[in-house]
Amino acid sequence: MSGDNLPPGTIPPGRLFGVGVGPGDPELMTLKAVRTIGSCPVVAYFCKRGTRGHARRIADGAITPDHIELPMVYPVTVELPPDHPDYGRQIEAFFDESAERIAGHLAAGRSVAALNEGDPFFYGSFMHLFLRLSTRFPTEVVPGVTSMVCSAALLPRPLMLRDDVLSVIPGTLDEAALVRALTAADASVVMKLGQNLPKVRRAIAAAGLAERAWYVERASMDEQRFMPFLEAPDSAPYFSQIVIPGEGKRG
Amino acid sequence: MSGDNLPPGTIPPGRLFGVGVGPGDPELMTLKAVRTIGSCPVVAYFCKRGTRGHARRIADGAITPDHIELPMVYPVTVELPPDHPDYGRQIEAFFDESAERIAGHLAAGRSVAALNEGDPFFYGSFMHLFLRLSTRFPTEVVPGVTSMVCSAALLPRPLMLRDDVLSVIPGTLDEAALVRALTAADASVVMKLGQNLPKVRRAIAAAGLAERAWYVERASMDEQRFMPFLEAPDSAPYFSQIVIPGEGKRG
Repeated sequence: MSGDNLPPGTIPPGRLFGVGVGPGDPELMTLKAVRTIGSCPVVAYFCKRGTRGHARRIADGAITPDHIELPMVYPVTVELPPDHPDYGRQIEAFFDESAERIAGHLAAGRSVAALNEGDPFFYGSFMHLFLRLSTRFPTEVVPGVTSMVCSAALLPRPLMLRDDVLSVIPGTLDEAALVRALTAADASVVMKLGQNLPKVRRAIAAAGLAERAWYVERASMDEQRFMPFLEAPDSAPYFSQIVIPGEGKRG
Repeated sequence: MSGDNLPPGTIPPGRLFGVGVGPGDPELMTLKAVRTIGSCPVVAYFCKRGTRGHARRIADGAITPDHIELPMVYPVTVELPPDHPDYGRQIEAFFDESAERIAGHLAAGRSVAALNEGDPFFYGSFMHLFLRLSTRFPTEVVPGVTSMVCSAALLPRPLMLRDDVLSVIPGTLDEAALVRALTAADASVVMKLGQNLPKVRRAIAAAGLAERAWYVERASMDEQRFMPFLEAPDSAPYFSQIVIPGEGKRG
């Protein structure tokens, strides 16, 4: 652990925690997530302009007036399309700057809980901080309940059983890659739907999986929706998934 | 919800909860798991003869002397090999009988929390109860932290980022199927190692992934071990995994 062999008088650095706060229902936070947030003087979270952000809302009951809150407000969300060259530059500069704000607290000896919806290493936004800070400061990931298992909890059968292989697939892939990933496995979860839904819909039909698939929107949140994929709406929010349970392959 | 339109004088049935208690560290239970266990008069769990079982140990702090405990003791674990025809018959009869013991409590109006390591629908033993009882009694799955994300939390990089596809693979597959599943994805987790380790080792070498892979034993438990796969021991317990992080594919 860092901080054990510092010269006398040196402030030991704070620890950076990537805290998985689960998919939406505050009750799906772990005891460890709640304790970790309580033990850190600083709480950092990504959000869009004008909102507190999804992770901050989930963790609300664990945050006190004594916490120093460090909102990291995304600079571009609508103004530029994600494939515009300036978008990548702006967003990388934003992650650099966010990491330096956190580094300032850590260097001053203040531990930071960086909140992350779901689990930090499961497509989590925490990666942007981890990749910039984990070699400079003691860093720990507190795992969380993924939206994937939360969606699967609604199914009329287990997501995987026996020898089923599960594929976890980002909806951002191109259609051919989606079909390949869907047909390579026995069970699948397609994440990051949003505007990728029409393409994902074609891929699921091409893979012959439409009748086994379920659509889940905002799993575990108040506005949760769950239905057979064939009845899914024409447009989906980012926090929606398609879940295809396995059939319990043997051997 | 069942129980809303019963004739006067009828006892409304209890609810069956499949409660994910996480991978091992009791602090990785969710607030909802703790509350659900506290709200059920009966706590059921699978175990081997002479032990309380892994899930019961994890949930220990949430169980009180007022709980009715329903241990479901596996009848065969060493006496017969799993491919012996009597093994399958005995184990199916055991699951039938376990489900009927739980059904007795539910029919008498007592809700039952059936404990499950990790998440109930992620290769969970709860499936044996769910498949037998969910059409007869109101049933709910409380999702949990999977051992997979708990193992991944130890990695020096995120498990998946950007457009990585993840494959979750049971080590019970044959070697050719293992190689196919490993090469179809960008990131992989191989579960259920135990005596499958030598075969899995050959498959990972054949897929050219040995240098990117990590070995994790008993993630989040006191006896946790974590090391590069190339340094992994020759034999592995069932609660061990191989984790191969993605490289952050784009597009």
